[in-house]
Amino acid sequence: MENIAVIGVDVGGTKMTAALAKRSGQIVNLLRVQTKPEEGAKGGFKAICEMIWELLNEGRRKDLKVVRIGVGFGGPVNFEQGTVYLSHHVHGWENFPLKEEIEKHFGIVTPVDNDANAGTLGEWMFGAGKGIDDLLYVNIGTGIGGGIISGGKLIRGHRNLAGEIGHMTVKPDGPICTCGRKGCLEALASGSAIGREGTERFGRAMKSEEVFQLAEKGDETAKQIIAEAVDALAFAIGAAANLFNPKRVILGGGVSEAPEHLLVEPLRLRLLRYTLPQAAEGLEIVRAQLGYDAGIMGAIALAITTLDA
Amino acid sequence: MENIAVIGVDVGGTKMTAALAKRSGQIVNLLRVQTKPEEGAKGGFKAICEMIWELLNEGRRKDLKVVRIGVGFGGPVNFEQGTVYLSHHVHGWENFPLKEEIEKHFGIVTPVDNDANAGTLGEWMFGAGKGIDDLLYVNIGTGIGGGIISGGKLIRGHRNLAGEIGHMTVKPDGPICTCGRKGCLEALASGSAIGREGTERFGRAMKSEEVFQLAEKGDETAKQIIAEAVDALAFAIGAAANLFNPKRVILGGGVSEAPEHLLVEPLRLRLLRYTLPQAAEGLEIVRAQLGYDAGIMGAIALAITTLDA
Repeated sequence: MENIAVIGVDVGGTKMTAALAKRSGQIVNLLRVQTKPEEGAKGGFKAICEMIWELLNEGRRKDLKVVRIGVGFGGPVNFEQGTVYLSHHVHGWENFPLKEEIEKHFGIVTPVDNDANAGTLGEWMFGAGKGIDDLLYVNIGTGIGGGIISGGKLIRGHRNLAGEIGHMTVKPDGPICTCGRKGCLEALASGSAIGREGTERFGRAMKSEEVFQLAEKGDETAKQIIAEAVDALAFAIGAAANLFNPKRVILGGGVSEAPEHLLVEPLRLRLLRYTLPQAAEGLEIVRAQLGYDAGIMGAIALAITTLDA
Repeated sequence: MENIAVIGVDVGGTKMTAALAKRSGQIVNLLRVQTKPEEGAKGGFKAICEMIWELLNEGRRKDLKVVRIGVGFGGPVNFEQGTVYLSHHVHGWENFPLKEEIEKHFGIVTPVDNDANAGTLGEWMFGAGKGIDDLLYVNIGTGIGGGIISGGKLIRGHRNLAGEIGHMTVKPDGPICTCGRKGCLEALASGSAIGREGTERFGRAMKSEEVFQLAEKGDETAKQIIAEAVDALAFAIGAAANLFNPKRVILGGGVSEAPEHLLVEPLRLRLLRYTLPQAAEGLEIVRAQLGYDAGIMGAIALAITTLDA
């Protein structure tokens, strides 16, 4: 059974990545395509099938037998049925039976999950979470997403909506969030939120990267903006730590690439304020390791986890 | 195998309960004893052994074979090792190897867990959580404890400290909590917290029951105190719902016995403020069913869950 392989597919709003990988996770072939959101789910699904087709042929040439196709989708997914709830970026995905359609086309078992869950499985299997049975993954990019591994299993919840740490309320009177409510973590500590505060307090358009650069140079206003974001992260991660007592917290996404002493180190300290001492003791805060490959490695991990089930 | 049975032991600060039960959870014999905290862990352990001994004899008389002893302990426990971390009420329990000692005495496999975890298993197996794979249990008494079932499994976390919703920070500048930090849920919505606010705002010693009674009669100050407690509960339960996406929230403990229209109903409404709409949709808020028996039924449930493992 040395020649067993999987295909992973990472479906974003405008970009798709697919890879043929060995059971170890080692990538054999990788494909990337741009898609046009205006072509909707139909165009997206066609692109997915073409990539899978090409990778299956590649597998055959290399004497690899593809036994799973894992799909990480950029939006909420009904995991059990493998249907997409919706995409926030591309029309036509509402209730699309992605699992069923791919299985019908290719005759290969195809788990489909949202990209946050897939990303969590990826870091757990191949990245900063290897060997850790209880971990929290927090992806801090334009928005904030996350996932939880507890007792060696991904927490999915009743409708596969678990892990939404980005929409935990932190400041009830805080700024409006993309979800319409006020003071969510995402509205206080995401890249967009940090950029928004920079824009407001410096009086010119600013992205989060520049706020970090200014803080690095010692600018007090920029340092204050980041301290507030760190405090919000500590509040939400502390709440999660009290609830499920993880051993390790993994920070991914663009914002997590900020210098350690501006983000990870102050976060470690600030967490003590919001976490029970017993749960905070020995709690590790580390950066994600997969970076740009998080999406595709997550889809591969999703495929591989179902091999043992 | 009709005659298989278990023993459950609920170890409180001053009160212990033990029961012989069938595999179905049906109690055959029940014993209660008062213990003296001043006799420490040694006195407590002796009382535990005497009760087990009596129930084993009873089992023999009734032709029941006891195959597990489940112990719910009133304090943090290292579940894997079955050692007590400590008791907040009785000295001498620090690092006591409770599982090992009972197994040595009686030669019967003995899972030991904290009473919040046991209580969660109890409601899940015999109470308001029957058949629900994703639930949050919140016990609102003198303090606030809790437990989480996710994907049909109790969430224990890295050091068996999961479920501490009572120590989630809700108001960073709120009152001091028993844990030494500020603004925990327990400091805002427990029976003691509601009583403390009553005492303060009415200018005389008051318990939470009286605050509820006054609110029931229409007193505006009492209604305000309860509204604030409900808001804190909604904040914390909403955060947990975003993280774990439960199907049902079960409220136990003395405070949960307040009239529905003062607690459960306003909580349902208030939760919408703090929960993602998708996670709030269809989320059920119900009262626990086991009441006074929660502790002993939890210990029995703990014993029974390990039968299938």
